[in-house]
Amino acid sequence: MAHTSQTPPRGHVAFVGAGPGDPELLTVRALREIQEAEVILHDQLVPEAILSLASATATLVPVGKKGFGPSMKQGDINALIIAHAQSGARVIRLKAGDPGVFGRLDEETEALDAAGIPYHVTPGLTASTAAAASLGVSLTKRGRNSDLRLLTGHDVKGFAEQDWRTLARPGAVAAIYMGKRAARFLQGRLMMHGADPATPVTAVENASRPNERHIATTLAMLAADLDAAELDGPAVLLLGLAPQAARALAIARQEVS
Amino acid sequence: MAHTSQTPPRGHVAFVGAGPGDPELLTVRALREIQEAEVILHDQLVPEAILSLASATATLVPVGKKGFGPSMKQGDINALIIAHAQSGARVIRLKAGDPGVFGRLDEETEALDAAGIPYHVTPGLTASTAAAASLGVSLTKRGRNSDLRLLTGHDVKGFAEQDWRTLARPGAVAAIYMGKRAARFLQGRLMMHGADPATPVTAVENASRPNERHIATTLAMLAADLDAAELDGPAVLLLGLAPQAARALAIARQEVS
Repeated sequence: MAHTSQTPPRGHVAFVGAGPGDPELLTVRALREIQEAEVILHDQLVPEAILSLASATATLVPVGKKGFGPSMKQGDINALIIAHAQSGARVIRLKAGDPGVFGRLDEETEALDAAGIPYHVTPGLTASTAAAASLGVSLTKRGRNSDLRLLTGHDVKGFAEQDWRTLARPGAVAAIYMGKRAARFLQGRLMMHGADPATPVTAVENASRPNERHIATTLAMLAADLDAAELDGPAVLLLGLAPQAARALAIARQEVS
Repeated sequence: MAHTSQTPPRGHVAFVGAGPGDPELLTVRALREIQEAEVILHDQLVPEAILSLASATATLVPVGKKGFGPSMKQGDINALIIAHAQSGARVIRLKAGDPGVFGRLDEETEALDAAGIPYHVTPGLTASTAAAASLGVSLTKRGRNSDLRLLTGHDVKGFAEQDWRTLARPGAVAAIYMGKRAARFLQGRLMMHGADPATPVTAVENASRPNERHIATTLAMLAADLDAAELDGPAVLLLGLAPQAARALAIARQEVS
């Protein structure tokens, strides 16, 4: 069992979820691990507001992907983690969101297993739960959906095929990661499978960050509205969910208070 | 947008995710909101280790469900939240896990909307990501699954029907909440739909708590092995996932260090 209240020994790698971006949405354990790290190998998506929590003497090494941009090869990332772990430093591999949700965790842990290097995983908030919280809505609801899906808009083979028939049903809720470029594909597949064109879809860009934006639309207007919005940060699409109207009111009240 | 680094005004309700149980898996924001609260209406599943972080002068009010045990009616919970908010106290509604994942959040926010009471939602770690992290495995993996499902084993109508056909496919991964009593039902439905009896299933009981247990089994043995294990805490079933063998090794090394 993973009770890591003690500081792990050197040569041990902590895979740490950085959450969606707001430093306040780090877990207490992740914050401590970032502060204690000597080497932080981090996804380029992890924002400066989180990296700045590291010790002034820590070595920060950007690795990994940044959306569709150029990225380091997985084998090179694995080699870097291993080299730093073998140096005896306190190493953390800091991943955006949750390491276990679309984070390619297994590819890195398998490399550590092969090298005989121990590790543990500190979970993080995944973007979809932060996005739904910002909208003031629940991802599941009794009588609407007892099944929530987390999907990728694209995978190694290109746009990812899914079980469109069940996703197209009324009441279905899905959080689509990396869905920005796949919006037109998703829209086409879902409508071809009979989804209601009026199904709400909300894109949450930069969930939990100061530049967070919500684009509330419908399946029929999804691709057009996302094109018009010119998203440039990471975005999660919440299929089947609209922002809670009263939520906007609550936040407005809060900001003026 | 939800930037609540400032303290919300009185009369405002914070719905706060307490995460899976380990106080270190609270978010930094949730910890602060718990410490600042004057009234905490909490799920009975939230452990003492977290409740003890509240101010010594805070009023703690247990509400809500505890697995299959007796529970307060939703309408009574809503009325309590509203009454405390209207008293002008700093109120948080502290929910196990993430408020937006099988947390009946919308039922409570709709009551606040009707009463004109503003609120915000602070997301929390949901049990499945903590459970997978404890096993040292990823919930998604390139080439295996680009779709992760979170399901309930039962809903208001009893055992919850799901899209069994796609869940029965090789490589499918699902986290089944409240799945303990539904194990035999799940096993039957999945095997009827052609799932491989050798599909790995791991039950994680009390994820992230000192009494966390893992029961690693197969679909064929699921109901029998869970019966034998006599689970009595909250458990999440991870369909399609086995613990990482090297993970156990890593933790063993860590504990002796």
